[in-house]
Amino acid sequence: MTKKVLKFGGTSVGSVKRILHAAEIVKKEHSKGNQIIVVVSAMSGKTNELISHSSSISEKFNKREMDVLLSSGEQVTSALMAGALNEIGIKSKSWMNWQIPILTEGEHTNSRIVNMSINKINSFLSEGGVAVIPGFQGISQNGEITTIGRGGSDASAVAIAKIFQTESCEIYTDVDGVYSTDPSNIPVAKKISKISYDEMLELSSLGAKVIQSSAVQTAMMYDIPLQVKSTFTDREGTEIFSQENIDYSKAVTGVAYSKDDAKVTIIGVEDKPGVAADIFEPLGKNQINVDMVIQNISPDGKTTDITFTIKRNDLNKTLKTLKSNDKISFKSLDQNDAVSKISVVGAGMVTTPGVTYKMFRALADEKINILAISTSEIKISVIINEKDTLKAVKKLHSIFNLD
Amino acid sequence: MTKKVLKFGGTSVGSVKRILHAAEIVKKEHSKGNQIIVVVSAMSGKTNELISHSSSISEKFNKREMDVLLSSGEQVTSALMAGALNEIGIKSKSWMNWQIPILTEGEHTNSRIVNMSINKINSFLSEGGVAVIPGFQGISQNGEITTIGRGGSDASAVAIAKIFQTESCEIYTDVDGVYSTDPSNIPVAKKISKISYDEMLELSSLGAKVIQSSAVQTAMMYDIPLQVKSTFTDREGTEIFSQENIDYSKAVTGVAYSKDDAKVTIIGVEDKPGVAADIFEPLGKNQINVDMVIQNISPDGKTTDITFTIKRNDLNKTLKTLKSNDKISFKSLDQNDAVSKISVVGAGMVTTPGVTYKMFRALADEKINILAISTSEIKISVIINEKDTLKAVKKLHSIFNLD
Repeated sequence: MTKKVLKFGGTSVGSVKRILHAAEIVKKEHSKGNQIIVVVSAMSGKTNELISHSSSISEKFNKREMDVLLSSGEQVTSALMAGALNEIGIKSKSWMNWQIPILTEGEHTNSRIVNMSINKINSFLSEGGVAVIPGFQGISQNGEITTIGRGGSDASAVAIAKIFQTESCEIYTDVDGVYSTDPSNIPVAKKISKISYDEMLELSSLGAKVIQSSAVQTAMMYDIPLQVKSTFTDREGTEIFSQENIDYSKAVTGVAYSKDDAKVTIIGVEDKPGVAADIFEPLGKNQINVDMVIQNISPDGKTTDITFTIKRNDLNKTLKTLKSNDKISFKSLDQNDAVSKISVVGAGMVTTPGVTYKMFRALADEKINILAISTSEIKISVIINEKDTLKAVKKLHSIFNLD
Repeated sequence: MTKKVLKFGGTSVGSVKRILHAAEIVKKEHSKGNQIIVVVSAMSGKTNELISHSSSISEKFNKREMDVLLSSGEQVTSALMAGALNEIGIKSKSWMNWQIPILTEGEHTNSRIVNMSINKINSFLSEGGVAVIPGFQGISQNGEITTIGRGGSDASAVAIAKIFQTESCEIYTDVDGVYSTDPSNIPVAKKISKISYDEMLELSSLGAKVIQSSAVQTAMMYDIPLQVKSTFTDREGTEIFSQENIDYSKAVTGVAYSKDDAKVTIIGVEDKPGVAADIFEPLGKNQINVDMVIQNISPDGKTTDITFTIKRNDLNKTLKTLKSNDKISFKSLDQNDAVSKISVVGAGMVTTPGVTYKMFRALADEKINILAISTSEIKISVIINEKDTLKAVKKLHSIFNLD
């Protein structure tokens, strides 16, 4: 007998019809003799509806009450899922965060699961029951409702899989797995059947919105195999596990891109120790997330140019922060809000020389200008003009044999 | 310093704008130096939305899960109300049923509040905080979420007023009080400024949908004065308290009517002991609520006619139950699904002779045929043809000096 966590995301439980469909998947797994814990998200659209209510009251809505508010969404889905399972003949109960309890640490709207009691649920499972647990939430040591950040139901599922020591954690979603690039814009994109945690982290933080990054991190830390599957098809999904289980015949696993970036260059800034800290500290304090940073070699040893990228909607705040920063002096600011970031990701890259060269050559062949470069062990990212995005992705997808 | 419960119904919290408006009412009461406990309903429409979800899954949706589902509605309003109060400068916290806890007894979807812990909330109140509590719900001894039946937020407010020994319990709603008859159809209807618990019970069970009957019963049992007020106007509302506090210059306080009744007559049924039990027991077992019952005098001592009224949508089920009942024999069944019930209610009636006569004469003057009569100490109800409803109500409202 195998113990499993099945997690259903917002679109998979977006209507009563879909909840009934998800319940049939649970029934099928249960009828194989598996012990099943179901973790559910709020019905799609519900969390946004609740947030729009709170925003109409205040943009700085009380965070404690925000958690009380938002946690209701998964409560609704849990009750409907447990009711649906009972209706189709499966003994099932929903368990609220405080009934288990699921203990969290950290501040309201951004806490993390640290522990949960397993005895009551384990004995229910061994009686053949299916336990349904709302994702995304818990309670603090003080007995307050807490939530674990947007998209946190994936992280809940992984934490529950870890604490209950389940054999697997299956993430049901509206796509049937992780693709080598965005299948909605690049039709030749191929589903990846196996991928490592590291690669998945690079891909998901770069815009492949299949599974939440913090969930992959937790799974990696505790070596919990994840499966991403479609709720709507029977096709095989993507398995995510540790690198040693994967045979790397290809250097590159996937090509990701994001189109909401902007690039800023500070021209003629003094080249002395501490200048980077003076530039980036005020940005961090203003909640501006800096992505890539490139410092040019100083031609005269006195001044240099520093280029960095940020999210496009932080551009105005960034320019304002730089201009009002009297710790640094510079000649001028250059900005470009029509850039995109293209990344090739692959754990096989480490053992395959020439990936970087091959990538740059391919872009040059397409006459695509590279504005900035950043690399890691399993990833190469470049900033290019936004208009060239799809051309670049298609070319890279093809030359790395992903088509 | 006065301790108060302020309860806001579904329409009073039906949108974010209305929640902010209700929060201003709370702020005003709080700034007078009162200690305030706010009890809220689900936003109007939300409970129906949740019920429609559960009904799409099953008409016999699991009752435990139904309580988990429905209780989310008041949770949402509580968080929004506490957030709105904080936004306008009032220290406030929402308290979920399990955080207090509010203990209930009885079965799922139909439990009642038996106790709650008061220390945490009392100390919050004495620090100047406003406590917000979701109505309609509690938890059982086993730690399960329970609800106390449709409209149960009024009952929650009264139970909370009793347990916290507050000086008053103010029910804010979308009408500005209890009227002498239905103001939407009879424009001469007048607001009643003071009414006894008994009269209010007769009026509310007869269709004046201002406050839930079980809440009035609880208030009567513990002598908790209620005030019904409009959320949307500053006008004086209606006070509901014990009879001795009311000066009865008028015999009749109000005229109520309902238009969803049906009348059934069983003709030629055997006139012997136990026949009424044989008729009504199967109806009760089929959840059919019988209202008025009239047994005619048996002309021959052998057979008699029995007339009773039910809700109109129970008519088919009633006829089917009667026809399949082999414990009784009768000649024929007569039915009328176009009847209405008119009631005059007044605690002053007991001390004012001739109310019954005056009522029947008034209806006769209007050529309105009385199909059945039922009386109690403070109420006289008649069944008439539905088409005569408004004519009858207007006439009675006028002759009992209510215009």
